[in-house]
Amino acid sequence: MDFLEEPIPGVGTYDDFNTIDWVREKSRDRDRHREITNKSKESTWALIHSVSDAFSGWLLMLLIGLLSGSLAGLIDISAHWMTDLKEGICTGGFWFNHEHCCWNSDHVTFEDRYKCPEWNSWSQLIISTDEGAFAYIVNYFMYVLWALLFAFLAVSLVKVFAPYACGSGIPEIKTILSGFIIRGYLGKWTLVIKTITLVLAVSSGLSLGKEGPLVHVACCCGNILCHCFNKYRKNEAKRREVLSAAAAAGVSVAFGAPIGGVLFSLEEVSYYFPLKTLWRSFFAALVAAFTLRSINPFGNSRLVLFYVEFHTPWHLFELVPFILLGIFGGLWGALFIRTNIAWCRKRKTTQLGKYPVIEVLIVTAITAILAFPNEYTRMSTSELISELFNDCGLLDSSKLCDYENHFNTSKGGELPDRPAGVGVYSAMWQLALTLILKIVITIFTFGMKIPSGLFIPSMAVGAIAGRLLGVGMEQLAYYHHDWTIFNSWCSQGADCITPGLYAMVGAAACLGGVTRMTVSLVVIMFELTGGLEYIVPLMAAAMTSKWVADALGREGIYDAHIRLNGYPFLEAKEEFAHKTLAMDVMKPRRNDPLLTVLTQDSMTVEDVETIISETTYSGFPVVVSRESQRLVGFVLRRDLIISIENARKKQDGVVSTSIIYFTEHSPPMPPYTPPTLKLRNILDLSPFTVTDLTPMEIVVDIFRKLGLRQCLVTHNGRLLGIITKKDVLKHIAQMANQDPDSILFN
Amino acid sequence: MDFLEEPIPGVGTYDDFNTIDWVREKSRDRDRHREITNKSKESTWALIHSVSDAFSGWLLMLLIGLLSGSLAGLIDISAHWMTDLKEGICTGGFWFNHEHCCWNSDHVTFEDRYKCPEWNSWSQLIISTDEGAFAYIVNYFMYVLWALLFAFLAVSLVKVFAPYACGSGIPEIKTILSGFIIRGYLGKWTLVIKTITLVLAVSSGLSLGKEGPLVHVACCCGNILCHCFNKYRKNEAKRREVLSAAAAAGVSVAFGAPIGGVLFSLEEVSYYFPLKTLWRSFFAALVAAFTLRSINPFGNSRLVLFYVEFHTPWHLFELVPFILLGIFGGLWGALFIRTNIAWCRKRKTTQLGKYPVIEVLIVTAITAILAFPNEYTRMSTSELISELFNDCGLLDSSKLCDYENHFNTSKGGELPDRPAGVGVYSAMWQLALTLILKIVITIFTFGMKIPSGLFIPSMAVGAIAGRLLGVGMEQLAYYHHDWTIFNSWCSQGADCITPGLYAMVGAAACLGGVTRMTVSLVVIMFELTGGLEYIVPLMAAAMTSKWVADALGREGIYDAHIRLNGYPFLEAKEEFAHKTLAMDVMKPRRNDPLLTVLTQDSMTVEDVETIISETTYSGFPVVVSRESQRLVGFVLRRDLIISIENARKKQDGVVSTSIIYFTEHSPPMPPYTPPTLKLRNILDLSPFTVTDLTPMEIVVDIFRKLGLRQCLVTHNGRLLGIITKKDVLKHIAQMANQDPDSILFN
Repeated sequence: MDFLEEPIPGVGTYDDFNTIDWVREKSRDRDRHREITNKSKESTWALIHSVSDAFSGWLLMLLIGLLSGSLAGLIDISAHWMTDLKEGICTGGFWFNHEHCCWNSDHVTFEDRYKCPEWNSWSQLIISTDEGAFAYIVNYFMYVLWALLFAFLAVSLVKVFAPYACGSGIPEIKTILSGFIIRGYLGKWTLVIKTITLVLAVSSGLSLGKEGPLVHVACCCGNILCHCFNKYRKNEAKRREVLSAAAAAGVSVAFGAPIGGVLFSLEEVSYYFPLKTLWRSFFAALVAAFTLRSINPFGNSRLVLFYVEFHTPWHLFELVPFILLGIFGGLWGALFIRTNIAWCRKRKTTQLGKYPVIEVLIVTAITAILAFPNEYTRMSTSELISELFNDCGLLDSSKLCDYENHFNTSKGGELPDRPAGVGVYSAMWQLALTLILKIVITIFTFGMKIPSGLFIPSMAVGAIAGRLLGVGMEQLAYYHHDWTIFNSWCSQGADCITPGLYAMVGAAACLGGVTRMTVSLVVIMFELTGGLEYIVPLMAAAMTSKWVADALGREGIYDAHIRLNGYPFLEAKEEFAHKTLAMDVMKPRRNDPLLTVLTQDSMTVEDVETIISETTYSGFPVVVSRESQRLVGFVLRRDLIISIENARKKQDGVVSTSIIYFTEHSPPMPPYTPPTLKLRNILDLSPFTVTDLTPMEIVVDIFRKLGLRQCLVTHNGRLLGIITKKDVLKHIAQMANQDPDSILFN
Repeated sequence: MDFLEEPIPGVGTYDDFNTIDWVREKSRDRDRHREITNKSKESTWALIHSVSDAFSGWLLMLLIGLLSGSLAGLIDISAHWMTDLKEGICTGGFWFNHEHCCWNSDHVTFEDRYKCPEWNSWSQLIISTDEGAFAYIVNYFMYVLWALLFAFLAVSLVKVFAPYACGSGIPEIKTILSGFIIRGYLGKWTLVIKTITLVLAVSSGLSLGKEGPLVHVACCCGNILCHCFNKYRKNEAKRREVLSAAAAAGVSVAFGAPIGGVLFSLEEVSYYFPLKTLWRSFFAALVAAFTLRSINPFGNSRLVLFYVEFHTPWHLFELVPFILLGIFGGLWGALFIRTNIAWCRKRKTTQLGKYPVIEVLIVTAITAILAFPNEYTRMSTSELISELFNDCGLLDSSKLCDYENHFNTSKGGELPDRPAGVGVYSAMWQLALTLILKIVITIFTFGMKIPSGLFIPSMAVGAIAGRLLGVGMEQLAYYHHDWTIFNSWCSQGADCITPGLYAMVGAAACLGGVTRMTVSLVVIMFELTGGLEYIVPLMAAAMTSKWVADALGREGIYDAHIRLNGYPFLEAKEEFAHKTLAMDVMKPRRNDPLLTVLTQDSMTVEDVETIISETTYSGFPVVVSRESQRLVGFVLRRDLIISIENARKKQDGVVSTSIIYFTEHSPPMPPYTPPTLKLRNILDLSPFTVTDLTPMEIVVDIFRKLGLRQCLVTHNGRLLGIITKKDVLKHIAQMANQDPDSILFN
């Protein structure tokens, strides 16, 4: 292609719901880069342009970091305020949340830091008392009412303004990063509506988290900011590099884990991740984390709610319960994925899917009604996790820390294992009920028409299970420290078991079971909790959980949702293990009519237009002649249509009988024949070819690694057929005994 | 290829100094896997085999982690002991090092923990006193003598037993991982000799580190342990996955940084790094770190010497000095690479290279003589770094902490900035001298015929520069805290500047300048020092240093050494930016004789043998006929020679006039003609092809991503030429105005 000629507008762009051609996009970027570099020697202005072009990537990362960090801060603060609004309001200023309201009060001690006269529960405001059954009912009623209001607003906004704003967004982002085009999915409306509805959804008390949607929000920021830079606006491949980095920034602000974010983007989300993107992602993630820390949404100079302070060592024997937690996490992950996918499929195929607002309202009502009576379900899920991760200090007033104090503190500062008090036992019961509620309700929540993330509910399930096991172990060790397994390392009056650590390990296991992350998960967990000491327990649990979950079903939740929606995503993790050949997959099949081809110098405009109107293929191979079937190149349908239309309009004398030439030089024409149409500039002269005997595993590998859209099949140098990405995906589905027609798009 | 037939021994293996074919190796592994999976349904025994095969990878990782962790512990302990041996010996047991010797003594206080009667310096042993000029000279003499002895032993052992044991090994491992074969480079002799000589080299006091060679040692472990598992022994691609993981384990034990190790392997060393390898690398790195911690070589339950405890915050303004350190690091990196490569080239091309033993002895003598009088050069480099990283406490007795104490400690526990005392000033002078010595001597040391790593010397240079700047800043802030830049955040009596942090940042900057790592470097630094707070300063310095160094020369030290040695390494980081086409690179060139091809059904054994003996190509394309030049497949020279030899020996009647068939069915032969030789089983039926008009940037991309050895070039379906990996490398060198003949191997 000659890039110095004026290009025809539209050539080289893509339709919605199509797959990009990575090779072509990268070529175009290199051509662009080369042109700028060559020009830069000519003038100072061009040199400045060249330098600014080189640094525009870093500038873009800076902007993405700033914007997504700010949005995350905004979301955190608003969600915090609105969550508290369900319980009451601050008379010192309605814009204060519960905690801030009491900070400004003079009437509180540290013990009663959540009780101050400025903070009024709804019953105090309405019936002027906070005591008695009636006040309880008023508060209960207001709680449910607010939850329903928030949920209704969220689902209505999503439905009316931006249908793409629902869900976690990660399956779609994975698909987009692999080269698929979904217009508007990362647009400004999606950004605005997702940001607002995310706050509403989180505040409504549903069993969902804001972490996954934050990745979507950050990717929207990345996509929108791309429009400010020519380099990224016009090139789909370069834009995807930016989106990979934006995803890292999203996780970075979601968890306050910049390195975990980069690894998450690398391990879970991205498709094409060159080293340059690694550095840039890291930069964006750092800037985002730094911005969020400057906003300081939690008021504790930390990025996260879950920072834990304990550094108590763990014993090798404890690996047994940790691995048990891993098994639990794996089972939960596999169970969750199966039931959630089954429910989502039902929603897709039955009447249920037609009433998203009613569905959301029903689920919200059930959640709110069941949640209010139990303090562990009433508090926000992230607060719950934070409490579960915590180790009990002497001053802790929570029920979970209601141990019988004997105060024979043996070592300075460390609290020994103690017998559990009444509070702990009742907390255990409540936690068990919370566990059941969370498990059931999350299955129905994830996939509704509101923004909903999975990280926090999964972690909550794991943290509760972990804490229960941890307290159990602790009591076992206290009452039976003479057992062989304990007596070697756990003497009376020593702090042997840290239940908070079990909660942490359990959270990692459940999150691992659902998402099948490993390295990034462990890194996120230790950035989250600040404990480098616990890599081994976390790793053991994450690995076990992955193995167990993989044994029960190969796909993680995101891949399962990709398959449910029929997106054309070519999984890079799975190896293709079947012994089929390219000839078994290519079109045309054995009994089909021959492949539709164009010849390089003998077809008229009319012939080509007939072929275009009679077929729906996205592109056509060009051959020397029908007889020889020797391949010259490949031309895309869209480019062909645009070029012919353009020529008919602008080029004098091009009529239906004009001959189309794809050759370099058209032969001299006899007089009185219509002028020819030269289309070599839209011809891809380097189409990828494989032989018919190439094993499909190699073909799949080529498609994945080079990001192809199609590949031509030859036999002894003659063109035989074509394999598209969709053919590959259908073949993979068929080989895995799935319905090949579940792949919906091109 | 039919894998159920008995394969001819040798077919499918490689010669030394050749490049492997990744596609073929991976195909073979998948065939193997498929066969085992199919068989596993037949019997219980086969099922067990299949399961054990699936878990063998994890088992192998466990073994690699255990072995490399143990070796690292052994090396640490021995090097520590032998370093102390240069100064004296323990009479309580010669096997104790200085520190351990005094641990066992009853005569010491904490202040004098390095002075105990059991530890005797050489002058005490020989002339029974430690005082006076003569004792000093005796100690000086013994120090130099031991250094020379260690260095002599190291270089002799390397020269006689294992020439591959020299250097850091990382350039070669990068090349091997990219698919090159160097037999013996990761063998058992290299392992044994490298382990021993590494201890000797480190103890000799030369300006080198053990970190790079530890990666080599771990890779040797990985390679040797591969021999226990069929899956990895026979498959070069699978083995490289293991080696990637082993490299991660190596860095993990070198720095006590498991995550940094995995990222180092990913960012710097590895070529093909699927997600599966990521998880396994992480596992191996963890096991290795855990093993090393169990051995506890430093006696402090830490994996590393450099653990720092301070968590003082840093101020945004301090980014200016941090970026200055980044610039220094970049300049040092670029300078070091240029001068070191120039010196190594001189060694290669002149007489100098013929006397490695003398060279090592001279450098050792100079180092030892210059090092002894200055306490900062006399101590081992890692101790020096450790001291520089440290923040001064009240109890620190080192000269670096000799501040004037006013004891107006404003905040609990924190020491305010204080005016420097005499000790600090004299330490500054000594450190400046140390800096110059290290800069100069390291250039001559790296590349000698002994194991030598670069990490520690680079870090030392940076740490010294950083500490000097840090102390300067601290004094500036103390005496001028009313300056505008200071007064907003730095009041009198506050601890504003932490010189130890500057040393840390400087170390990262210099290491980054030399190796051009970024993310892995920052992760290693914070795992090393335990401070998650300092990501931003470290990142700022690492990025600046990379930018500055890249502006002065594109290559990191390892890539520069790869190019110096002419290894065929296809760099994955650099984009190929020139606008050449496949036809410009392919052989035969325009005026050359035609491409040597075989025909599929008309050549006799003799014809083929003539072609083999007359050419040196590693493979030949097979075509339908010379006239049509339509491509059928590709056959490797080595396979062809082995098969014909085998057929002549074992197959009755195959003579020189036998016709070789590459077709599926040979036509019925008339009677009395010699039997035919069917060689379809060694024919690669899916050779990669590109068209002659394919841009070279795409060809380079294909070679990199698919790991090809060669690629055939066609024009309109006719075979035109061939491009090998060496052609690509030569072309890249030519385009970069380098000597294309510097690429030495195939």
